[in-house]
Amino acid sequence: MPAPPLLPDPTLLAGGAAGPRALRPLLDTVLTALAEGAAARCGPLPAGGPEAVTRRLLERCGPALPAHGTGAHDALHSLVGALAEGAADPADPHCAAHLHCPPLAVAAAADLAAAALNPSLDSWDQAPAASALERHLTSALAELVHPEGPAPDALVTSGGTEANLLGLLLARERLGPALRIICGANAHHSVHRAAWLLGLPAPTVLPTPRGILDPAAVADALAGLDALRCTTAAPAPALVVGTAGTTDAGAIDPLPALADTVAAHRDHRPTALHIDAAYGGPLLFSAAHRAKLTGLDRADSVTLDLHKLGWQPVAAGLLTVPETATLAPLGQRADYLNAEDDTEAGLPDLLGRSPRTTRRPDILKIAVTLRALGTTGLAALVDATCAAAAELAALIEAEPRLSLHSRPTISTVLFRPADATDEEVADIRRRLLTEGRAVLGRARARGADGRDTLWLKATLLNPHVQPGDLAALRKLVLDLSPPRPKGDQP
Amino acid sequence: MPAPPLLPDPTLLAGGAAGPRALRPLLDTVLTALAEGAAARCGPLPAGGPEAVTRRLLERCGPALPAHGTGAHDALHSLVGALAEGAADPADPHCAAHLHCPPLAVAAAADLAAAALNPSLDSWDQAPAASALERHLTSALAELVHPEGPAPDALVTSGGTEANLLGLLLARERLGPALRIICGANAHHSVHRAAWLLGLPAPTVLPTPRGILDPAAVADALAGLDALRCTTAAPAPALVVGTAGTTDAGAIDPLPALADTVAAHRDHRPTALHIDAAYGGPLLFSAAHRAKLTGLDRADSVTLDLHKLGWQPVAAGLLTVPETATLAPLGQRADYLNAEDDTEAGLPDLLGRSPRTTRRPDILKIAVTLRALGTTGLAALVDATCAAAAELAALIEAEPRLSLHSRPTISTVLFRPADATDEEVADIRRRLLTEGRAVLGRARARGADGRDTLWLKATLLNPHVQPGDLAALRKLVLDLSPPRPKGDQP
Repeated sequence: MPAPPLLPDPTLLAGGAAGPRALRPLLDTVLTALAEGAAARCGPLPAGGPEAVTRRLLERCGPALPAHGTGAHDALHSLVGALAEGAADPADPHCAAHLHCPPLAVAAAADLAAAALNPSLDSWDQAPAASALERHLTSALAELVHPEGPAPDALVTSGGTEANLLGLLLARERLGPALRIICGANAHHSVHRAAWLLGLPAPTVLPTPRGILDPAAVADALAGLDALRCTTAAPAPALVVGTAGTTDAGAIDPLPALADTVAAHRDHRPTALHIDAAYGGPLLFSAAHRAKLTGLDRADSVTLDLHKLGWQPVAAGLLTVPETATLAPLGQRADYLNAEDDTEAGLPDLLGRSPRTTRRPDILKIAVTLRALGTTGLAALVDATCAAAAELAALIEAEPRLSLHSRPTISTVLFRPADATDEEVADIRRRLLTEGRAVLGRARARGADGRDTLWLKATLLNPHVQPGDLAALRKLVLDLSPPRPKGDQP
Repeated sequence: MPAPPLLPDPTLLAGGAAGPRALRPLLDTVLTALAEGAAARCGPLPAGGPEAVTRRLLERCGPALPAHGTGAHDALHSLVGALAEGAADPADPHCAAHLHCPPLAVAAAADLAAAALNPSLDSWDQAPAASALERHLTSALAELVHPEGPAPDALVTSGGTEANLLGLLLARERLGPALRIICGANAHHSVHRAAWLLGLPAPTVLPTPRGILDPAAVADALAGLDALRCTTAAPAPALVVGTAGTTDAGAIDPLPALADTVAAHRDHRPTALHIDAAYGGPLLFSAAHRAKLTGLDRADSVTLDLHKLGWQPVAAGLLTVPETATLAPLGQRADYLNAEDDTEAGLPDLLGRSPRTTRRPDILKIAVTLRALGTTGLAALVDATCAAAAELAALIEAEPRLSLHSRPTISTVLFRPADATDEEVADIRRRLLTEGRAVLGRARARGADGRDTLWLKATLLNPHVQPGDLAALRKLVLDLSPPRPKGDQP
């Protein structure tokens, strides 16, 4: 064949020796567009609400499938600019609704290398060094969670949801399809979704009026399981799912008592314990906070998520286990990826390390972050974030027109205008969103008066937040609050 | 609280107005490390095999969890450099084993913005513009696949594996848990894995000696299903899974005949058709090749994967459906993300758009690529890649010491040294890997002589590959082949 015509500029590749040269000017355009977008937005999110934001985006991005391209620089400039202008940016101190962290620049920069090299972790011959790096890091992280485990191991997941799914799946495979799941009303919705996906019965949900599981209620539920199954003499296997850092309040279930409860039932029925520490897990890095996770090491599987309190770009989830053999059910044979003779010849078999096949090396940004900061550096970020939440709670407490739900366990602060109705609380949140002033979350929780009400939720994840930012956030809410101080109640 | 001490440099954030300034010097370090790593590797993958590669990586990356950090630049330089040096780089023309594409620089650059802004697509208030962009693009891509569909829609997935899982899950929810799955021996292993995960019976696997499904065999299998179920009078629902671009050979099942077969059985039993077009889907962009996908639009769900023949960094999967209502089973309510009153007030409900919760905007790089290149530009890449495969096949055919399995349907070329044993073929592949010379795949397939044998597999996905590269690849294999020309057979 004759040498084909050189393909045009936008088809330059990111990899190879020429990749860095191709990337450099494009990255300049991206950085310019990010800066312009942030300047145009000028706040935590764009004003105007969904319709206005969508309209502005569509004006800038044009047809989705144009016949003819506009070139790499125009495409990057217009679309990245539009995305930045229309972002809810967690790097803004007033963007604090969700477990949605502002990523570290060093982690985002590392992630570029993952995209450029594009290793895929389903076979060694697509990721020789990346797969070795993943093994190295996951072992160390698993040992951090399960220091006494016989053979700690961890899988990298697309987030807490996939890690919870794997926790349930591994329990189903180990204990059998009759598995019953017991969790609290405070558990993440992904536990329910995983049970549905896996074809398991819906979990038994225990009330958590104080925001955390009651181990006595768990014991009762375990004892009551057999009543559900009259067709067999064998006790139904069970998986207890606890949470270390609830989504609504950042609360941590009583882990040692849960582990004791599960251990006490193991004589009678096969019982396992999974802890969803997607949020709270990184407290392990902090000498000041790690005692809150005492008992975590006794779980049979643990969900972690470094795109929350670990400042990674999405995705950076993990499932850790104390014993690598429990991961065996994920093993799979596909001749093109892990033929037996290849495995015998020494090529590592990676296929059982994920329910996905093609898989990006999310471990790279985590590894770079840990080397850049060290565990003490990461602990400093954890401590600063928890301190900011304590500071916000103190500011709320000092303001008579606001009620604080409780002192934060991690970095979530629930508060509300005193005397506001639930509708008013929901409306304040939506007004702040629509006006582009703040991104706050919401959570239903029982207050000191014993009533279930709706609260505003500030999930602080920005370690650089300053006291002035928190005072300004409080003022934003106060300005929209009903004008009745606490003392004026009828 | 007093103003906290400023946190050190490696804790700078990627977002906000200051993010671009923080990123710029770090990106310089990444580009330098990528260039140095590629130069040090000097080939498609590192030489030495798994043990040597792991040893070199571990020497460079140090302890996984050091107490004290070395700073952002050192961490990026050492780890990105080590990853690049130890990569199997699909931008090298001799890295051609898998559906593992070299990403476009423009797509990798766009992906940096996703990491820096970190929008998460599980709620509008984490991704105002990104969610609007995703709706815009997914609608257009779904219409490309299902132009006659009543309401085409698409979900972004972590890859073909998640898209196949969703295809099976939606069929299970629509047709019931008694669902039987019928697929060919040529189907991707993720179909089997999905059935296992979902608690469905293992698929019925039909032999595919010619590499593609036989519609008559599918009809027989559908007719034979009832024999499996004597406990109910109602016919068992069925899902037929076809493939448009098999992993082993790039073959495309006879889509119109499969659609006819499924349609003919619908009177008798609820039957659906899912097509895994993870590989072949982007042929739709090409006027020269799209006829190969005739019939694809008649499927009830289709898997696409733009991190294969779409030159995206992982992940860039899609599931398309002709009717958005079929996605309803994924709907989910979680008060903190999509409370009813928020939805009523106009905040978009995104939670049913994925089985994941936190979710990176993989749509950004796809949107940027489509705008930069246009559909004609993407078609040019598809055409160049298919032409390269045809050229390699011609080179193989012209060489008497090599056998070609068949002319490529898409861009996969199966070939082997004439007269080599399977062990010799497997060994050639491993020697090329270990010596760092080429990354070729392997596949078992029936040859012209009717025997099942092992073939070398070149999956061409590099649109810039030159004829000289292909000739050199042929020579690499010839140099390791048994020295018997075809004419010398006993």
